[in-house]
Amino acid sequence: MRIGALYQGQGTCLFRVYAPNAGRVALEFAARGGETRAMERRPQGYWEARVEGIRPGELYKFRLDDKASHPDPASHYQPDGVHGPSQVWDHAGFKWTDEAWQGIPLDECIMYEIHPGTFTPEGTLEAVASKIPHLKDLGINAVEIMPVNQFPGVHNWGYDGTYLFAVQSSYGGPDGFKRLVDAFHAEGIAVILDVVYNHLGPEGNYLSEFGPYFTSHYKTPWGSAINFDGAGSDQVRDFFIENALYWMREFHVDGLRLDATHQMYDMSARHFLSELEERITEFSGRHGRQRHLIAESDLNDPGILTGRDAGGYGMQAQWLDDFQHCVDSMLRGGKSGYRTDYGNSDQFVKVNREGFVYAGEYCPSRGRRFGASSALRPPGQFIVFIQNHDQVGNRPLGERFNEIVDFEAYKLAAGAMFVSPYIPLLFMGEEYAETNPFLFFADFSDPAIVKAVRDGRREEFAFLHVGDDVPDPASPETFQRSKLDWNRKESGRHRVMLDFYRELIALRKSLPSLKRLNREGMEMDGEGLAFKLVRRSQGTGDVETGEILCLMNFAPGAARMDSHVREGEWELVLDSSDKRWGGPGPGAPRLVRPGAVLEVPGRCFYLYKRSDVKPG
Amino acid sequence: MRIGALYQGQGTCLFRVYAPNAGRVALEFAARGGETRAMERRPQGYWEARVEGIRPGELYKFRLDDKASHPDPASHYQPDGVHGPSQVWDHAGFKWTDEAWQGIPLDECIMYEIHPGTFTPEGTLEAVASKIPHLKDLGINAVEIMPVNQFPGVHNWGYDGTYLFAVQSSYGGPDGFKRLVDAFHAEGIAVILDVVYNHLGPEGNYLSEFGPYFTSHYKTPWGSAINFDGAGSDQVRDFFIENALYWMREFHVDGLRLDATHQMYDMSARHFLSELEERITEFSGRHGRQRHLIAESDLNDPGILTGRDAGGYGMQAQWLDDFQHCVDSMLRGGKSGYRTDYGNSDQFVKVNREGFVYAGEYCPSRGRRFGASSALRPPGQFIVFIQNHDQVGNRPLGERFNEIVDFEAYKLAAGAMFVSPYIPLLFMGEEYAETNPFLFFADFSDPAIVKAVRDGRREEFAFLHVGDDVPDPASPETFQRSKLDWNRKESGRHRVMLDFYRELIALRKSLPSLKRLNREGMEMDGEGLAFKLVRRSQGTGDVETGEILCLMNFAPGAARMDSHVREGEWELVLDSSDKRWGGPGPGAPRLVRPGAVLEVPGRCFYLYKRSDVKPG
Repeated sequence: MRIGALYQGQGTCLFRVYAPNAGRVALEFAARGGETRAMERRPQGYWEARVEGIRPGELYKFRLDDKASHPDPASHYQPDGVHGPSQVWDHAGFKWTDEAWQGIPLDECIMYEIHPGTFTPEGTLEAVASKIPHLKDLGINAVEIMPVNQFPGVHNWGYDGTYLFAVQSSYGGPDGFKRLVDAFHAEGIAVILDVVYNHLGPEGNYLSEFGPYFTSHYKTPWGSAINFDGAGSDQVRDFFIENALYWMREFHVDGLRLDATHQMYDMSARHFLSELEERITEFSGRHGRQRHLIAESDLNDPGILTGRDAGGYGMQAQWLDDFQHCVDSMLRGGKSGYRTDYGNSDQFVKVNREGFVYAGEYCPSRGRRFGASSALRPPGQFIVFIQNHDQVGNRPLGERFNEIVDFEAYKLAAGAMFVSPYIPLLFMGEEYAETNPFLFFADFSDPAIVKAVRDGRREEFAFLHVGDDVPDPASPETFQRSKLDWNRKESGRHRVMLDFYRELIALRKSLPSLKRLNREGMEMDGEGLAFKLVRRSQGTGDVETGEILCLMNFAPGAARMDSHVREGEWELVLDSSDKRWGGPGPGAPRLVRPGAVLEVPGRCFYLYKRSDVKPG
Repeated sequence: MRIGALYQGQGTCLFRVYAPNAGRVALEFAARGGETRAMERRPQGYWEARVEGIRPGELYKFRLDDKASHPDPASHYQPDGVHGPSQVWDHAGFKWTDEAWQGIPLDECIMYEIHPGTFTPEGTLEAVASKIPHLKDLGINAVEIMPVNQFPGVHNWGYDGTYLFAVQSSYGGPDGFKRLVDAFHAEGIAVILDVVYNHLGPEGNYLSEFGPYFTSHYKTPWGSAINFDGAGSDQVRDFFIENALYWMREFHVDGLRLDATHQMYDMSARHFLSELEERITEFSGRHGRQRHLIAESDLNDPGILTGRDAGGYGMQAQWLDDFQHCVDSMLRGGKSGYRTDYGNSDQFVKVNREGFVYAGEYCPSRGRRFGASSALRPPGQFIVFIQNHDQVGNRPLGERFNEIVDFEAYKLAAGAMFVSPYIPLLFMGEEYAETNPFLFFADFSDPAIVKAVRDGRREEFAFLHVGDDVPDPASPETFQRSKLDWNRKESGRHRVMLDFYRELIALRKSLPSLKRLNREGMEMDGEGLAFKLVRRSQGTGDVETGEILCLMNFAPGAARMDSHVREGEWELVLDSSDKRWGGPGPGAPRLVRPGAVLEVPGRCFYLYKRSDVKPG
């Protein structure tokens, strides 16, 4: 059931809200001296009023039982922030130009994660669009936008949003986001939106006044869990499903990244995610192109990805944290957090061959066996990265990966991501090795919340003895410091790195055996921290024939590696140690034949293709 | 890993306990003046000591960190109750005589639920055995014994058990249960044991002193949830799996009824139930006969029954509460609890045709859509009853079903159970319409718990205004009043009912179309509260051909019902309104032909078989 202020043109607006326990609900028009209008009770706890004489821009709240008034839980716009009135929005007023847009198949995506507030100096959605030429030049064809729904204040990662249908006013509101999506589509770039369906932010969250949106039956680290399986949950589930449909229908987004699905507790016979997937698939079917549902999941549970018919939740893909953990741990070692669990050669082979590293094995930092095998899930269901907002921002000082490993190691990590059989995701600025941090910031106005967040952040890192060095999340400076500095990308090693990423993306798109995300033609083995990876694509139909060999050496010192994989002649396509890429050399041989033993410098990789395999 | 006191003969005993956070663990021998013996730390948080000079019967506790001593969480016997020392038990000392026992296929079971404390005046397991001739005469071939593990005091339903491996001392201890299982097997009766893996009782529960057995992450109505998915949960899961194996290995039980599986919270990629099922299947394979895992589940989730390979938990069967709810609601009407949700004709047809009545529909008492379809699950996966310990005992005055519906209605309900395509389960005394109540009773010694349980019980029924009439659960009289009175079964309507049940069971076992639990040959329709049910068994292999027609009238007044189903001649096999069964008559025709219209008295049923179908 559609909810919120549904403007229908000609001054008519249908208001609908779920408030099952209210005895009376009234609309209160904020700009009309508090004029009210009674709403009518409808089945299943909904209230409705069809009102004439409404102009888009009209401000309103809902008054419950003649007592307090609150903004609309499904508000489409909060011009004055999370505590102010909601605003009627005329979605039909926007002129889309993306009729011809057909989307990008998920397994062809080169993804790029953007935090709109820090991506540009301006921190708006309009400014994001100004960087489209850069992204296009780089080879990006899909962006993942961190949550844009209304959060408290003017700076926040987005995970404290409390109005799931409203585009953050300081980002530019609904039309700002529509213009951005339209602009991306015009340039052949898909838009995945990050949405949070596992909790709501602590400030400006009036949902409990309206209905049973939350449950105390389960806990999340960030507050009350959403009520997906208790009394009144049908309408709560529908609220979130409508939200997903809303972003697709009104904003033309190509998919959703579902934050922390492991914190969505649902013991009912039909898990919320499975119901969501069915509704989105149905919508996609009616609207002619596929929409993607991508889960963040900390369960290593292949059932998230298994089809609904086979008893799974049917998510199209999920983030594969294990890949980042392996790469990070091999390059940095260390003993805290996930780096206790990762770092050996077999794990990196396994993450490439099967997906989940922990597939039932004992995981030290969790103190228990963890996960189940994902070997039967197609590689195109996994998204990999060498860093994302979490790994960067959850370091106390927000250092990016390029700030904590050396230049060669960074190139190696990037290479490993692009030769893996998975969908790559870059975190904004990664491509030119941005040196500004990405810190944790949140702009609450409630002093108790400000203090709790500040203290919580310091306590979280107390064990590192960084104490007062942890930047204050509430400080505007923390936010400002986290912005990208685009001047960097044109010079020095930043420029080299940008060229290197562009080259990697170009190879990913042009070499058949990298482009095709399959495990059938894959061979991989490792010794110490040196790995030999072969991937083959056998031409059938549209698919071209090709074969690559990648020698990756994660150890600090040079490794002698056997290039012999199979018959044929192999031609060098990329050498990360090449002087061209700021490497130490000496440079890999241009051509190798079976049996050759190559010396690969520490933390470098050589990528060869089989030159005697002709495209089919 | 096997745990507890593992007596190995010749005075040697291996003690093993999980105590991951302890710095020191020692055995303390209670009968040796507190003599202690240090244990050695083993991997994964276990502690072990192999001790010589131990005799079966030796009393011990575990002393943690030189402070408090506690009984063994995996104690095999608690001779002095839940707070006393544990006792070493020599399981090899028992001489089994059931070598030839092959078990009973689940879908051939006629089950009978027993609470050992109230089944006989003596209230012991030995006394249960004295009733085997009665059960055998009745036709029972499987008993389900309510929990026998050690609970506080001498009377309890069994769901407050705190020593999952110890047979209640007041019931007769380990050998008492072994003798009973051996005796049942000797008479061809399988034994299903009720086990509680979702919580532990509130008194005498020292598990938290030993390790992370519980979690505060989830809630159960009865206390802390079991830690199936947090840190240290591998060993906790193993504790429960070892318990299941222990009952099978040492006590030869044929299966387990898993209490309230919907309160077993496990978000890990491998649900505990699925792991349990795999281990039990493996054990069964090694020991030559199948063991059954039967879930109590309040989820209406077919995934509980779906095979592991298909993403389910692989339980062999589950209780189908919906059947009882339909029968009860049609006969009693009413508006409280589940009777708000059930009572119409379509639901009774659906429960017979598909299983779950709520398969995604809105369920009023739950305030949400509930369940998913079980139409693809074989009928042999469902166990039905017209009452069990819960429905009887959770009435404030513990009235049995025969006390709240009239004699005809009771026979009809029983008939409906035996003509359904599901496995029937009787609650002890049901067969002769016992009139004593089955009340809620619990014999705690902690005054705070006694008071909380007593007050809780009264508050639970406050809405019924029965107030002080609710019997005190702590009173021995409440327990005594709940015992069966076996003298009743020989006379009057009790005797008629007993004969009637015997007849129903005999028909169930002899008529091919009742014996075979299938839906393929089933047709059912209802009008008002009158139902026509046809079931056919087409002879193939060992299966005989047969066909039955059952006309069931749940309305108070007579119904004119069309007997025409298909060609053939139909012969009466049972008429619940017959004078022989204490009914009002007038008696159904002995033979009917297609097209005949029969008048079925209110709350009676006619059962016909097709007389021109010969056994194949």
